[in-house]
Amino acid sequence: MNNNELIVIALGGNALLDSKSKGSIEERERAADKTAEQLHDVLSSDFRVVLTHGNGPQVGNILIQNEEAASKVPPMPLDVCVAETQGEIGYVLQKSIQNDFRRKGIDKQIITLLTQVVVDENDPAFSNFSKPIGPYYNEEQKNEILRNKKDWMFAKDPAGKGFRRVVPSPKPIKINETRIISDLLNNNYLVIAVGGGGIPVYFNSEKNETRGVEAVIDKDLASARLAIDLNVDKLIILTNVDYCYINFKKENQIVLKDLNLDEANTYIEQGHFSAGSMGPKVQAAVEFVTATGKKAVITSIERLNDALTGKAGTVIHP
Amino acid sequence: MNNNELIVIALGGNALLDSKSKGSIEERERAADKTAEQLHDVLSSDFRVVLTHGNGPQVGNILIQNEEAASKVPPMPLDVCVAETQGEIGYVLQKSIQNDFRRKGIDKQIITLLTQVVVDENDPAFSNFSKPIGPYYNEEQKNEILRNKKDWMFAKDPAGKGFRRVVPSPKPIKINETRIISDLLNNNYLVIAVGGGGIPVYFNSEKNETRGVEAVIDKDLASARLAIDLNVDKLIILTNVDYCYINFKKENQIVLKDLNLDEANTYIEQGHFSAGSMGPKVQAAVEFVTATGKKAVITSIERLNDALTGKAGTVIHP
Repeated sequence: MNNNELIVIALGGNALLDSKSKGSIEERERAADKTAEQLHDVLSSDFRVVLTHGNGPQVGNILIQNEEAASKVPPMPLDVCVAETQGEIGYVLQKSIQNDFRRKGIDKQIITLLTQVVVDENDPAFSNFSKPIGPYYNEEQKNEILRNKKDWMFAKDPAGKGFRRVVPSPKPIKINETRIISDLLNNNYLVIAVGGGGIPVYFNSEKNETRGVEAVIDKDLASARLAIDLNVDKLIILTNVDYCYINFKKENQIVLKDLNLDEANTYIEQGHFSAGSMGPKVQAAVEFVTATGKKAVITSIERLNDALTGKAGTVIHP
Repeated sequence: MNNNELIVIALGGNALLDSKSKGSIEERERAADKTAEQLHDVLSSDFRVVLTHGNGPQVGNILIQNEEAASKVPPMPLDVCVAETQGEIGYVLQKSIQNDFRRKGIDKQIITLLTQVVVDENDPAFSNFSKPIGPYYNEEQKNEILRNKKDWMFAKDPAGKGFRRVVPSPKPIKINETRIISDLLNNNYLVIAVGGGGIPVYFNSEKNETRGVEAVIDKDLASARLAIDLNVDKLIILTNVDYCYINFKKENQIVLKDLNLDEANTYIEQGHFSAGSMGPKVQAAVEFVTATGKKAVITSIERLNDALTGKAGTVIHP
């Protein structure tokens, strides 16, 4: 792949922690090693790459740790927990890639940087807490927590597993570190950034300062925001299926290999893509393509190399 | 301060979390805001600066969280916990400095990057576990833990507070991100790196890979290593006293304003500097001065500006 195109690759959650595992370090390292191997061709090529990643299971674990130790150690707010996951996930992923490079004689420097993502304090998401995070609680536990955390919101799990904390998921409006990431790419570094959708912050105009906020930013939307601001050549969103589908898992399921913006928007409106999963991915692709006139691809990590040569994945284009 | 000298400033633990506080986010942000204000003059000057910092109380809190939630969430090894603290501490510190810059109209970009620090797997520290970390346990709790963690070591607290886990504190031999940090400084970024002494890793030659290791690297020695490898103009180690002393807190206490290498080494040998506190700071200063022929200064953050013009602090020189 002799091509110095600039691309953002958004890694799905299962690239770093199998959803069936509890998240031991051995399981994390195994997943990261496998991901590093699967990314090898593109990362060792002339492509200039920013890797972004989710943090769902990992931040869930940190929230459980915060709750369990709450009588001994002050729990941290969500922005700080996300920052912690940028540390742990970034480190494990970076190390796996470095080891893969070393074994195969690739001399390329990797950097993982903390990334703050600015949201609008007037985002409607702040009056519509929609994103469930962390452990399940029974009603009594939930009420006990609410006595101490008066601003927390809970929602009943539709599958009857109990209550979960819900937090706002506001739109990313600015990646604070865009200029630095751009410089690093120009210096030929492989960059790991925007982990977990970025550390959520907003600008408090009264105090004239940036403050953290208890929210979770969708990592695909944040990746699209970065891809737009960097004006990259392609946005690649990796997930656990090779293509998007309409009528997914029904008898009349149709694979989507090629979507223009009108088609993509129509299918979004028709509700073909599920809210917690494919929905934000297609939405992120649409935002990138609309803003830049370039292409986005949604595929699996196994088909990444094929996707880069147009032989696999759902391509969203103008 | 119109001077584009390159300096490493190592922040003491109390710059980011008062040792008397439990570590709530409000306490952390207050400490970081104050530190940002105290650093303002030097950070907004032409000096090119790398900030390093410790993580003692913060990693202690994370270890408690790991233990308390161990039945629900797999505890992470120490290298991953350090990576988490690079995330949380770096974020809070960076945000405070950015807010200080914004209020005062300084346009300077800051980056916090994950930093791995390589140690030697044959370091004698690995057969002499010396660094106490995390919570205190009674004998029963300690024995219970040892049933699951057969490779953990404990030491009895000399003050009788119980048992604490002890880990190796090996010498830092290489900062993996030196080249990147150097590039960033040349691009005029303010860099936050080597948090908590760095994520401890070693090279496993059998597997031809870098692996994390359960250890804590002294942050002053790691800062000196970085300062040597970057060949900076000055190493500044900040702590809670303005100067080093001999016969500290005794009737015949003498303040040390100026030490050559012979004097510093003699006082180290005579045991004037305590092992967990001033000892590694003077040692780090000596290593930097020996390797580079330049000056190191040990002082308080309150006297930093004076120290930069030679009017305060203990200066160690060739």
